[in-house]
Amino acid sequence: MAKNKPRNRHKHYNVPEPGTSPGSYSIDKDALRPKITLHTYNEKTHKKEELKDINNIDKLTENQDFNYWFDIKGLADSSIFETLYSKLNISKLVLEDITSSYQRPKLDEYDGDKYVFAVSRHLYLNEDKDLCNEQISFVLTSKCLITFQENYDDCFNPVRKRLEVGKGNIRIGGSSYLMYAIMDVIIDNYFSLLNHWGEELDSIEDRLFDKPDKRIMYDTQAIKRSLITIRKVTWPERDKLNDILRSDSNLITDLTKTYIKDAYDHCIQIIDFIESLKEIASANIDMNLSIISNRMNEIMKVLTIISSIFIPLTFIAGIYGMNFSREDPVTGKILKDNMPELYAEHGYLYTWLVMLVIAIFQIIYFWRRGWFK
Amino acid sequence: MAKNKPRNRHKHYNVPEPGTSPGSYSIDKDALRPKITLHTYNEKTHKKEELKDINNIDKLTENQDFNYWFDIKGLADSSIFETLYSKLNISKLVLEDITSSYQRPKLDEYDGDKYVFAVSRHLYLNEDKDLCNEQISFVLTSKCLITFQENYDDCFNPVRKRLEVGKGNIRIGGSSYLMYAIMDVIIDNYFSLLNHWGEELDSIEDRLFDKPDKRIMYDTQAIKRSLITIRKVTWPERDKLNDILRSDSNLITDLTKTYIKDAYDHCIQIIDFIESLKEIASANIDMNLSIISNRMNEIMKVLTIISSIFIPLTFIAGIYGMNFSREDPVTGKILKDNMPELYAEHGYLYTWLVMLVIAIFQIIYFWRRGWFK
Amino acid sequence: MAKNKPRNRHKHYNVPEPGTSPGSYSIDKDALRPKITLHTYNEKTHKKEELKDINNIDKLTENQDFNYWFDIKGLADSSIFETLYSKLNISKLVLEDITSSYQRPKLDEYDGDKYVFAVSRHLYLNEDKDLCNEQISFVLTSKCLITFQENYDDCFNPVRKRLEVGKGNIRIGGSSYLMYAIMDVIIDNYFSLLNHWGEELDSIEDRLFDKPDKRIMYDTQAIKRSLITIRKVTWPERDKLNDILRSDSNLITDLTKTYIKDAYDHCIQIIDFIESLKEIASANIDMNLSIISNRMNEIMKVLTIISSIFIPLTFIAGIYGMNFSREDPVTGKILKDNMPELYAEHGYLYTWLVMLVIAIFQIIYFWRRGWFK
Amino acid sequence: MAKNKPRNRHKHYNVPEPGTSPGSYSIDKDALRPKITLHTYNEKTHKKEELKDINNIDKLTENQDFNYWFDIKGLADSSIFETLYSKLNISKLVLEDITSSYQRPKLDEYDGDKYVFAVSRHLYLNEDKDLCNEQISFVLTSKCLITFQENYDDCFNPVRKRLEVGKGNIRIGGSSYLMYAIMDVIIDNYFSLLNHWGEELDSIEDRLFDKPDKRIMYDTQAIKRSLITIRKVTWPERDKLNDILRSDSNLITDLTKTYIKDAYDHCIQIIDFIESLKEIASANIDMNLSIISNRMNEIMKVLTIISSIFIPLTFIAGIYGMNFSREDPVTGKILKDNMPELYAEHGYLYTWLVMLVIAIFQIIYFWRRGWFK
Amino acid sequence: MAKNKPRNRHKHYNVPEPGTSPGSYSIDKDALRPKITLHTYNEKTHKKEELKDINNIDKLTENQDFNYWFDIKGLADSSIFETLYSKLNISKLVLEDITSSYQRPKLDEYDGDKYVFAVSRHLYLNEDKDLCNEQISFVLTSKCLITFQENYDDCFNPVRKRLEVGKGNIRIGGSSYLMYAIMDVIIDNYFSLLNHWGEELDSIEDRLFDKPDKRIMYDTQAIKRSLITIRKVTWPERDKLNDILRSDSNLITDLTKTYIKDAYDHCIQIIDFIESLKEIASANIDMNLSIISNRMNEIMKVLTIISSIFIPLTFIAGIYGMNFSREDPVTGKILKDNMPELYAEHGYLYTWLVMLVIAIFQIIYFWRRGWFK
Repeated sequence: MAKNKPRNRHKHYNVPEPGTSPGSYSIDKDALRPKITLHTYNEKTHKKEELKDINNIDKLTENQDFNYWFDIKGLADSSIFETLYSKLNISKLVLEDITSSYQRPKLDEYDGDKYVFAVSRHLYLNEDKDLCNEQISFVLTSKCLITFQENYDDCFNPVRKRLEVGKGNIRIGGSSYLMYAIMDVIIDNYFSLLNHWGEELDSIEDRLFDKPDKRIMYDTQAIKRSLITIRKVTWPERDKLNDILRSDSNLITDLTKTYIKDAYDHCIQIIDFIESLKEIASANIDMNLSIISNRMNEIMKVLTIISSIFIPLTFIAGIYGMNFSREDPVTGKILKDNMPELYAEHGYLYTWLVMLVIAIFQIIYFWRRGWFK
Repeated sequence: MAKNKPRNRHKHYNVPEPGTSPGSYSIDKDALRPKITLHTYNEKTHKKEELKDINNIDKLTENQDFNYWFDIKGLADSSIFETLYSKLNISKLVLEDITSSYQRPKLDEYDGDKYVFAVSRHLYLNEDKDLCNEQISFVLTSKCLITFQENYDDCFNPVRKRLEVGKGNIRIGGSSYLMYAIMDVIIDNYFSLLNHWGEELDSIEDRLFDKPDKRIMYDTQAIKRSLITIRKVTWPERDKLNDILRSDSNLITDLTKTYIKDAYDHCIQIIDFIESLKEIASANIDMNLSIISNRMNEIMKVLTIISSIFIPLTFIAGIYGMNFSREDPVTGKILKDNMPELYAEHGYLYTWLVMLVIAIFQIIYFWRRGWFK
Repeated sequence: MAKNKPRNRHKHYNVPEPGTSPGSYSIDKDALRPKITLHTYNEKTHKKEELKDINNIDKLTENQDFNYWFDIKGLADSSIFETLYSKLNISKLVLEDITSSYQRPKLDEYDGDKYVFAVSRHLYLNEDKDLCNEQISFVLTSKCLITFQENYDDCFNPVRKRLEVGKGNIRIGGSSYLMYAIMDVIIDNYFSLLNHWGEELDSIEDRLFDKPDKRIMYDTQAIKRSLITIRKVTWPERDKLNDILRSDSNLITDLTKTYIKDAYDHCIQIIDFIESLKEIASANIDMNLSIISNRMNEIMKVLTIISSIFIPLTFIAGIYGMNFSREDPVTGKILKDNMPELYAEHGYLYTWLVMLVIAIFQIIYFWRRGWFK
Repeated sequence: MAKNKPRNRHKHYNVPEPGTSPGSYSIDKDALRPKITLHTYNEKTHKKEELKDINNIDKLTENQDFNYWFDIKGLADSSIFETLYSKLNISKLVLEDITSSYQRPKLDEYDGDKYVFAVSRHLYLNEDKDLCNEQISFVLTSKCLITFQENYDDCFNPVRKRLEVGKGNIRIGGSSYLMYAIMDVIIDNYFSLLNHWGEELDSIEDRLFDKPDKRIMYDTQAIKRSLITIRKVTWPERDKLNDILRSDSNLITDLTKTYIKDAYDHCIQIIDFIESLKEIASANIDMNLSIISNRMNEIMKVLTIISSIFIPLTFIAGIYGMNFSREDPVTGKILKDNMPELYAEHGYLYTWLVMLVIAIFQIIYFWRRGWFK
Repeated sequence: MAKNKPRNRHKHYNVPEPGTSPGSYSIDKDALRPKITLHTYNEKTHKKEELKDINNIDKLTENQDFNYWFDIKGLADSSIFETLYSKLNISKLVLEDITSSYQRPKLDEYDGDKYVFAVSRHLYLNEDKDLCNEQISFVLTSKCLITFQENYDDCFNPVRKRLEVGKGNIRIGGSSYLMYAIMDVIIDNYFSLLNHWGEELDSIEDRLFDKPDKRIMYDTQAIKRSLITIRKVTWPERDKLNDILRSDSNLITDLTKTYIKDAYDHCIQIIDFIESLKEIASANIDMNLSIISNRMNEIMKVLTIISSIFIPLTFIAGIYGMNFSREDPVTGKILKDNMPELYAEHGYLYTWLVMLVIAIFQIIYFWRRGWFK
């Protein structure tokens, strides 16, 4: 019954072997070849180019009149990490975090104001409606943002478009604002997911009323699992945003912080939303159990009514189906005490009457108990 | 079975598209045309006039001898927001919050003491007894309060009346007191809602005792949902009031704070009240399950008593309905071991006696077990 | 089934209409005529007199050598509140709190050290064993304590007696000590209530073992409701006592604070006690469900044993009650394959044997499964 | 069914009457005559003597070269308390706490560094395996420790022995170390209790697997009650130890504090342990419910299989037991449509075959559903 | 049914007798003979030697150019502890903690910066898949780390290997880094355990869908128990790591703290992971109960359908199996009212028709109720 199996199993992350030297990043063997896009932009212009590698990242980002966004999709090239280590002095612990792909959302500041490392988790439903949990890593320096993601697809196209068009603060706000913009898109996506599950829960509730079946329990549990996953992500996301708000780093501008406050509020709303949906899911499960019990009651009522009415009647019919003899076969003596009813003139009719009385009596009894309602 | 469906589904708010530039407010296409009322008042006088727009808001509020209340119902006119942005320098994030209509209650202070932005949520039952959750936004400057609401109906008429009559502190306390007065009405409404649900829970409990049925579960769950909604609103409401209490802004007077303390106490009471009602709702559900189980027990008892008494009797009747032959049809030999009871003089009576003994024995057994109680 | 209905419904308080001007106290139309007793006392003397009104309260309390206790029962005289407002400058918010009768326990200090307002809630069982929740309000000035209660009956007689007799610190400790003494009596009463419910829970548990019935669930839920009520009162009571402990007001003496610490400890014990009783109540409900399930199991066992044994036997009897003919009625041919058992010499006995074997086999089977245990 | 009743009922403490003057200690009428032992010891010597009273306590403890331990068992002598009040200036609130015997563990410091009052609760199983909850009170002055307990039996003999033998720090550490040593024994006893209940829970789990019965639920609930009791004691015990750790009093030496830190760790472990056992108890209850449901399923399966197979067969037998006549008794006309099967040559055999087919078909059906597994 | 018994019972630790003098360590009689390995290493070299005892530990660690790791497996030699006490001045409380083997993870700093004592708990599955909970104790001085473990097997081989090979910071970071490395391996092991249980929970969920049986409940509860155990360990582990992070001791280097931060993050992740798995386990139990109830419903449906259809039919057959006589045997009078149906020309056929109609009617009724779905 494969199709009955619930979606969204617990994910087996690329956890490093116990005892591995910390700071030694290992690239997952299923990792995709990286696609690197460099956005060079300032208030007035925007240029987009595809890169093969980032080996000369120091040259590329020399001009301080521009901001740079290295948009890296796929992690299967260790030369990227070596360059980060050798040219930008990014800590090996950070590189391990980028590649390990099981980090909670967090913010780490390194070496005074040299760079900031942040992690967001991008949740989305793939084509099979499975909940995917992808890690987005951010390395932010004063003029440059480097983002890492595992897969080619993402939800950042609106941000890329705004960057090309130059709408709003996106080109004015600097690299930290760009980082905010991407984090904000990710959080907004959580709303869509929760709306999706909220609607599913409503449709499950409708099915509960119409035709409750076994799948309701499975579907509700699957949504509960998804809610557990998203909650596991949202709490540290909230902490991360709070860390950004209270950060002293001058890499994060005041403008960005104003907007991060907004994203923080959204995070709180999401946590509220999750808790509500969890309570609704639990309520559905309670309701389901109650409906099952009610149906059991109804089944039992049908059985009990029919059995209770007919069993005594069948007993009476059985009585008069007995073969007690009217006559002693040996002596021929009339045994007049043996079933005289059988020879009464209206015995059959009276028997029916007795049966009717018993049946009516029982029906009234069950009626009074409200079993026919 | 549409009428069985629970009320108060999870609301699908006007959530902005993921990736939209933050600060870009969008007006919901279902929004109503705004009705704008301007109350100009001071301790002695009060004037009420309908406005078409607020384009010359700076002119209207020039005279510092008066306080002003712009009471705006319906949000479908973007010129209002443009005026606020251009003439009062209200932040775009605030304008987005006013239009998005899914904010939690909150207080934001902007630009030192220039203005304060606050959100309350107005909960009420519409004609279909559905719980509606409307956003009320406040923009408070030194002499002027601007309120925004989505629908034309509200519960502020007592405040408007007090303003016209000039009863109490309403005209003396300044704009912040007016804002408090509106927030207080909203919170008082929560009490009415909770009283309403408390009475419903009591009537559900009565029905539990009288004639428990399927709808009890649905109705209780609907109330639980409503309680989840109101709790989701009351917690941040409490935080908001606390923020006002601890605010340093000189837009909020000490008099207002004294009264806000009172509203804060009410908020705590509401939270207490909600928790009590939730526990009572849960107790009802437990009770319902227990009653269902008890009824199942009673149904089973009836079935078991009747089956257990009559099945053995029917068996005995079946025995003496067998046709074992008294005589070998071929040899004519008398088979005297075949059912001699049938030819005994009082066989029939003895059979009845045996049956009676069995039935009485069983009745005593069930009686002792307390099944007739 | 009115007598089955649980006690202690959720109380509908005298909540003011939404939108009423705050600070405008309204007297409940069911309020009782006030009985006012003035205790004038110092270390050596004590005088008790009945008053008609407190209009000349300033005169009555002029002499600073005495302490004064205005013991006011019943709130139906608005002149009292007007006097408090005009002569003692008591805030209208306080007067509203005194009359509204749905305040949580709290402590408010007003106007520096001029007066202190406090609320306690007096819980008691009335003659119908319903839990009543009465508000006791305290206004404490330097030499004078004014208490307000809704009903004529209370539990303060021990305090009044100690005041007359002059035992302990009651006359020495000043007005704040008297306030403490009354609060302490109220809290001690909670212990009696909890002891009462603890004993009821024990007797319910006994009934669970002896003869579980439908009322157990109702009674347990009623106690749970009472516990919810008392907990709702005890938490803010604890906070209130803590506020008194940490109060800077010189109206509350250090002696009083030493004793308040004791009352605070009692409060904590009460909270512990409530939680224990709630857990015991929940355990009773679990136990009840388990006992119901067990009894269902036993009922089903009886039904299954009797049905399973007799249904096959009845089938066999039915077989030999069939009328397959030994002789073709048309041709007169002997149909020797039709039920030859009926004409066997010991057919009847063998049938009984077979039946016995089947029954014994089944009894052994059920025995092995432990169904007779 | 007295022996079925659960142990460890909620204890009815010697609560003072509501309204009693605080600080007025009353001696329980069931209190035992006190046995007083005075240990006079220093690093080198140890002397033990029985006292009749402590009236000359000031004389006895004059010599500052020794430490003194007044070990008082039984509280029925008010002269003890009067001496404490008159000679040592112990507060009446303390004396009330010693005699009232329902205090939570706590630490109170009085009159600067003059003396410290502490309460521990000694939990143990009496001969009937009931959980007893005895109060141990400590009054600690600079050279002297006075302990009070209600019963003659206790668990302090190891401490007394160590004091006689002079092993470890017991004679060196001063009176506060002795107090610690006694508190430590009491806490260590909690471990034994928890181990005891842990083993009981394990044996209950074994019984769940072997032969689940009604008593399992009762026994588990009794253990849960005991756990509630011990938790109610351990939390304030932890707070008390923490208070000792942070105490500024010079009555408590640094050496003692080092060891109190150890006892504090034990307390935390006990709290952990209690929570684990509570979860295990809850899991047992869940398991029990699941096992009951499973057994119900099995009972129902037996009933359903047997009923479903035999009811149709019995119906067929009933059909051919009908007496439709082959011949019109009046006209003698042959009614050849009336039950021709009865006169067919192999009618009986075919009937058996049909029955077999039906039975086999049903058995296969039930087999497929896995009902025989 | 021994094999049905759940694994991972509550462990009975080597708790000291109540009343034992604190600081008096006792060696468990089942303890293993110690195997002592001394690793002498610095950045360039590494030497490993087996020791018989550590009596001359002061000599062995004289050379300040090296770091030392005494890797001690098995605790059955009290001379080790005496050496630690006499030569390194390790507190007796520490020695008691090392031998008692029931400590929670913790960090204690002693005597300023002289040494640090830490405890970790190593959780692993033994060959019987039982969860074992071994204590690892650390004594850290400036140049020397001493580790104690109860058994010979452990999971530290990767660390030993890295030490031999000199990979990463392991030889550079000093003794505190080595301690971190061991703690980190232990924490990483928790991940493997959780992954193991996560997969078991998934396979249990699969079994729920395929063929739910009694063992599912047991297996889920066993995993829940394991989760309780690991959570009991992880919370204080987190606190311990936090204590290390905030420690002022100069025995712990900044490099180590950077990495401890990483381990701390892992700890948080583990706690998240545990909570998720616990919720999934609870969901499985809910699902199991729901499935059991659903199956009960199906069993009851089968019984009810078959009984309800055939019981009325059998009753009809019983009716016409009655022997009411057509003729008064005495008078020979024709009793034409007695069962005239039996002599009707098509009585038998009509009876069949009536039966068919009843059966079809019932089948339609059950079909409509959805009982065949």
